Amino acid sequence: MNITIIGSGNVATHMAAAFKNAGHRIVQVYSRNVQHAALLAYHVGAEAIDNLDQVNPDTGLFVVSVKDDAIAAVVKALAIHEKLIVHTSGATDLNTLLNLTPNAGVFYPLQTFSKIREVNFRSVPLCLEGANDNILAQLKQLAFTISNNVYAVDSAQRKILHLAAVFACNFPNYLYSVAQDLLAQNQMEFDLLRPLILETAQKVLEQEPRNVQTGPAVRNDEGTMVAHMQLLSDMPMLQEVYTLLSQGIIKNNKGLTAHE
Amino acid sequence: MNITIIGSGNVATHMAAAFKNAGHRIVQVYSRNVQHAALLAYHVGAEAIDNLDQVNPDTGLFVVSVKDDAIAAVVKALAIHEKLIVHTSGATDLNTLLNLTPNAGVFYPLQTFSKIREVNFRSVPLCLEGANDNILAQLKQLAFTISNNVYAVDSAQRKILHLAAVFACNFPNYLYSVAQDLLAQNQMEFDLLRPLILETAQKVLEQEPRNVQTGPAVRNDEGTMVAHMQLLSDMPMLQEVYTLLSQGIIKNNKGLTAHE
Repeated sequence: MNITIIGSGNVATHMAAAFKNAGHRIVQVYSRNVQHAALLAYHVGAEAIDNLDQVNPDTGLFVVSVKDDAIAAVVKALAIHEKLIVHTSGATDLNTLLNLTPNAGVFYPLQTFSKIREVNFRSVPLCLEGANDNILAQLKQLAFTISNNVYAVDSAQRKILHLAAVFACNFPNYLYSVAQDLLAQNQMEFDLLRPLILETAQKVLEQEPRNVQTGPAVRNDEGTMVAHMQLLSDMPMLQEVYTLLSQGIIKNNKGLTAHE
Repeated sequence: MNITIIGSGNVATHMAAAFKNAGHRIVQVYSRNVQHAALLAYHVGAEAIDNLDQVNPDTGLFVVSVKDDAIAAVVKALAIHEKLIVHTSGATDLNTLLNLTPNAGVFYPLQTFSKIREVNFRSVPLCLEGANDNILAQLKQLAFTISNNVYAVDSAQRKILHLAAVFACNFPNYLYSVAQDLLAQNQMEFDLLRPLILETAQKVLEQEPRNVQTGPAVRNDEGTMVAHMQLLSDMPMLQEVYTLLSQGIIKNNKGLTAHE
C-alpha cells in the first residue's frame, strides 16, 4: 500500500518503520520541521516535505500523527485529495475527522513509545475505527500486516481505554518512583526492586491481576499494615495513598468491584 | 555446603532448588506436613522429616522458611544444635533469632514466588544480615553461589524494603485490576493493556521512574484530567485514587518529593 506519514514524533517514527518493514511504500513524510521530516523520510525511503501544499496525491492513506489540537487543521488541508485519512490519537473523537471528510478512520497504537527503545510492533495493540464497515475492513487488513493484536474500538470505548491506560501505566510508574524514594531515604538502591517490578508485570501477562494479588492488604494482615502506616508517619500524603489502595484491595478480595 | 531446609512453601521450594542446582547438599527437608516434606525432599535429593526431633545435626546451616509467627518456636527447637540459623522473612527482626541463639542471620529473597512460575534465581535480590561480620561474610559467600544480586540490609532497612515492595508490586497489581474492570464494563478485553503493562515495567529496568513518567498529569493536561474525572463520576473511590495519584505525579514533576 502507498502510505503518507503526517508527523515525525515517536508514534509516527515507529509506525512508519513498521509499515516499511512490512513491505508498504512510504510516499512522503511531512513535518513542520524539515529536518525532522528529512530524518524519518531517509530511514523509510520517502520524500520529505514541510508544507502540506507539496503533498503527493498519489497515495492510498494519510496517517495523521500530530498533536491532538493540530489534527483538525492538518486534515482540513488533506481532505481535498479525497483519500482515506486516519489519526493515531487515543483521546480524539472520529467526529473530528468526519466534520471534514467522510473518508476517515482511527489507527490508534496502545503502547508507550520512546525513540530510544526498540518496540516489537507485532505485539502492539492497534485499536481501529472506521467511518463505515468498508473503511474498517481496509484498516484491519492493513493493521494485520504490522501487528498480531488488532481490535475494533469505537470513540467512546477509546476514551475509556485511554483512562484505563492511566491506571495501568502512568500510576504504577508513579508508585515505582515512590518506592525508589523510600529506599533512597534509607540508603538502599532501586536495583533491589527492579526484578520484583518486572515479575509483577510478567505475572499478569497470563493471569488475571485479581488472582495474583499479594501483600498485607489481601491477607488482611492488620499488624503489618499498622506497622507500615507508622513507617509513613512523616508522609501524610503517602499514608493516604497506602490507606486508599489497601482499602481497594480489601474490597476486591471480598468480591466487590473497586468502586463499590 | 550442607544445608537443611525448614519449611516447604514457595520460598523454601525455590530456594532449596537453587541451592541444589548450585552444587550444595540438602541434608533434610522439614515440614509439619510429611507429604509436603517428602515432595520437596524428593526433588532435591534430601531426607524428609516432619518432627524437629529427627533433625540431623550434621549440617552447616538451617534455613527457616516458615510463617512469621512460627519462626521463634522452630528456632528454639533448632538452637540446641549450635549451628548457623537464618530466616527468610522480610518483616521479622534479626532479634527474634538472637533472643534464642547467637549464631543467626537473615537470608531474605526479595521476589514474588509462585509454585506455577519458574524464577531465574540468579536475578533474585538476596538481602542478608548477620549477627556479626563473620556470619555476614559466610552468608554472602553462600548467596553468590545462587544469585548475582546480593545486598547487606539490616533489620530497620528490611522493614522499609518490605513497605517499598508494597508500593512497587502490590499496589500496581491492584491498579491493573482497576484498569481491567474499566475495560470489562465497556466490553473490552484486558489483553489490550497487557503489552503496555509489560513495557511500563521494562522501561524502569534501565531508567529512573521519574524520568519516564508519561500521561496527562505529568503534562499537566487539565482538559484530559477533567474528562477522565467525568468518566469516573459514578465511581467516587476511583476519582479519589485518580486525584491523589495525579497530584503526586504533578508534585514529583515540580521536583518535590511525593510526600511534601
